[in-house]
Amino acid sequence: MKRREFLQASAGMATALTTPSLFAMAPQRKTGQKSVAGLQVAPIENIRVAFIGVGARGSGHVSHWCKLEGVEIVAICDNHAPSLAASVKNVVDRYKRPAPKAYGRDKEDWKRMLAENKLDAVVISTPWADHTPMSMAAMKSGAHAFVEVPAATTVEDCWKLVNTSEQTQRYCMMLENVCYGREELMVLNMVRMAAFGDLLHGEAAYIHDLRGQMHEVGHGTGSWRTLEYAKRNGNLYPTHGLGPIAQYMGINRGDQFDYMVSMGSPSMMRNNYAKTLPAENPHSKLKYICADMNTSLIKTKLGRTIMVQWDEQMPRPYSRHNYIQGTKGAFAGFPDRYASETDAKSADDWMEGKDLKAAYEKYEHPLWKRIGEEAKRNGGHGGMDFLMWWRTVYCLRNGVTLDQDVYDAASWSVIGPLSEASVAKRAATLDIPDFTRGGWKDRSLLVIEPGK
Amino acid sequence: MKRREFLQASAGMATALTTPSLFAMAPQRKTGQKSVAGLQVAPIENIRVAFIGVGARGSGHVSHWCKLEGVEIVAICDNHAPSLAASVKNVVDRYKRPAPKAYGRDKEDWKRMLAENKLDAVVISTPWADHTPMSMAAMKSGAHAFVEVPAATTVEDCWKLVNTSEQTQRYCMMLENVCYGREELMVLNMVRMAAFGDLLHGEAAYIHDLRGQMHEVGHGTGSWRTLEYAKRNGNLYPTHGLGPIAQYMGINRGDQFDYMVSMGSPSMMRNNYAKTLPAENPHSKLKYICADMNTSLIKTKLGRTIMVQWDEQMPRPYSRHNYIQGTKGAFAGFPDRYASETDAKSADDWMEGKDLKAAYEKYEHPLWKRIGEEAKRNGGHGGMDFLMWWRTVYCLRNGVTLDQDVYDAASWSVIGPLSEASVAKRAATLDIPDFTRGGWKDRSLLVIEPGK
Repeated sequence: MKRREFLQASAGMATALTTPSLFAMAPQRKTGQKSVAGLQVAPIENIRVAFIGVGARGSGHVSHWCKLEGVEIVAICDNHAPSLAASVKNVVDRYKRPAPKAYGRDKEDWKRMLAENKLDAVVISTPWADHTPMSMAAMKSGAHAFVEVPAATTVEDCWKLVNTSEQTQRYCMMLENVCYGREELMVLNMVRMAAFGDLLHGEAAYIHDLRGQMHEVGHGTGSWRTLEYAKRNGNLYPTHGLGPIAQYMGINRGDQFDYMVSMGSPSMMRNNYAKTLPAENPHSKLKYICADMNTSLIKTKLGRTIMVQWDEQMPRPYSRHNYIQGTKGAFAGFPDRYASETDAKSADDWMEGKDLKAAYEKYEHPLWKRIGEEAKRNGGHGGMDFLMWWRTVYCLRNGVTLDQDVYDAASWSVIGPLSEASVAKRAATLDIPDFTRGGWKDRSLLVIEPGK
Repeated sequence: MKRREFLQASAGMATALTTPSLFAMAPQRKTGQKSVAGLQVAPIENIRVAFIGVGARGSGHVSHWCKLEGVEIVAICDNHAPSLAASVKNVVDRYKRPAPKAYGRDKEDWKRMLAENKLDAVVISTPWADHTPMSMAAMKSGAHAFVEVPAATTVEDCWKLVNTSEQTQRYCMMLENVCYGREELMVLNMVRMAAFGDLLHGEAAYIHDLRGQMHEVGHGTGSWRTLEYAKRNGNLYPTHGLGPIAQYMGINRGDQFDYMVSMGSPSMMRNNYAKTLPAENPHSKLKYICADMNTSLIKTKLGRTIMVQWDEQMPRPYSRHNYIQGTKGAFAGFPDRYASETDAKSADDWMEGKDLKAAYEKYEHPLWKRIGEEAKRNGGHGGMDFLMWWRTVYCLRNGVTLDQDVYDAASWSVIGPLSEASVAKRAATLDIPDFTRGGWKDRSLLVIEPGK
């Protein structure tokens, strides 16, 4: 299928009355602002890094950076004193590195940290609402921003990230670690090696029973994340499943999200769980409105479809699903399965378990081949966290364009607020903003070279 | 969650501008026409049955009827002479029954058959477009109609079936055999035994690579079904996966479909396959427009969600998926998996294979316990076909209401034409007609008693 055919079909299609143009508007670039697609910056031999937020997630990032060469842990900021002290101690005692400066006077102390230090990179692992303002400030201070998922929770904030990255010519990379999972990398490699032929359909999910977080009060992920389920109804956490699928399909790089719909189930699980909490836990008093299961459908400019699901409370096993279907076969995760018309007699049966060994030998991603075993030893979701940082630091130190940019951060994150808007209007169709402002048409596919 | 709460929430929601009222209209009942919910007719000791269409599918139905007591194979109609002769011979030679009358002069000979015979039941296994007119004529002739899936391919035809069944007070049962699969029955029983708590979300699929049918020219399923993919773009075959999920949730019986959206992938598989066909095969010349994968989302009146997928051409293993999620656990098919907070320590892991033995012992459906082994010996998709007919004949002979009625036939089939309409309008939201005209609110859940 020719891309031109698709584009013509798409252009000929009447725009539905149902599409609020608000969500699709592409604000004009300001003077001096330019695309960061393929942005290259000078190699940074010694990367001066600081961290905002070193709780359950950020403390792990500090450890991974400590294991890497050519980096300097300049400062750490957290307004939770025990977390701050623990991460500083970790750097000094466990990794025998110079003590980083500690910031944590109040909730705004990260601003002082950005002002007082000349940083190359800022790693942001704070509650969702802080991601965008902290990333913007980091970029404006001259540093590259590395922000946890989701990078933004409103359409407007997605645009702010894009504009700030374009204005400052700094990277804004969302820390979509799942893109560095062994299986996800292998499947990316399979796609590039045409194992699936032409891609037609993908499925992504984040299914993880996190009800237990409702016990966390005052400090910890559950202390702020629990409140989100009482305020919003949509897919609040779309990127873990969607990031790899978007990379497979070349979203922002030859294909683009076009429009989407979203639908939510009843919201019973957290309301039921709240009844089991001690009365003194404020989470026991909230009314939860977020659907227990959100299912969204995305159409791309090349006509492909993606189903994205999110469920953080229903009783069922963990899954990121990770399904990709092409004209020659399919791969599914959780558990890994591969069906192929080219690598097997037919695609009528799944290859699983040890039957997948040959596929792993044939398609293992070069990046995993180079550093996967070391990554596994260093842990972090089976190695993906270490691998993400190893690769990112490699790119920064060698002047190589990062694998994920602000367009990825924005387009993967925007599915969250758009799903809310669609759910609220009986699954209304919404256009998805093109954060590349047309740049996706001329951009080549992501290929991750492991370096030497 | 109280049903009243849901209904109030639903009533308070503004109707989206996007909903073409055409699809939701409930025509007034004519004088003398009344609901067939719970219809009971006098026991029929000796069921006089006839068959229209005895090709790949219908010939199997004839065999199953021949194995049952209290039935008389009165007539068989097929305009394909070899098929007609084979089924007549089968009745006489293999099953030692009196020769049925044979009809097959032309494509309209089924009308003569209905006129010349006083029938209790007519089994219809013809191309999709013939299902509705033949079912209507059968009912009008005084017989109960048993029609293959889908019962109708337009919204209007769904209403015609409902109105005819209500006018004639004859059953119109769609032959959704999957509702009689061992696993589907067991899960239905699990739902009724509250193994899953309150139901929240379901998923259904029909995934079956049928490209090979494109070789069938002149006669056989592929000779007419192939043409459908060149004319329509939607989920053309939704009922196999959806029927069981609808029974679990009590659609038409305490819950009801509310609205839906649908999205299709590119259409490449059949266009590619057409190039491999001999030039003299007319299917090699067609342009196929039906998406290789259709994904639809349905919202119910009680707020639950159902994802329905359909794919008859992509290279991947067969699946009907069959996923049901409640507040206490989940069951998934293909392969069977069960996760439970009540039957296991937690729902964090799937029980599979031999670990499911205890669940099968606890939840096996009484109907399967009674007749399942005999059904398996008689074959037909693992026994489901025989079981469907055994149960149906049991109901007719004992004056028991059938498990599936015309409301099920219409509401499960209507997802087809509605998916087409939604796909054509960028996944626009469409109201789903309530074929019970409000009757679903007062109706009790389906419980299948096996009899003695």
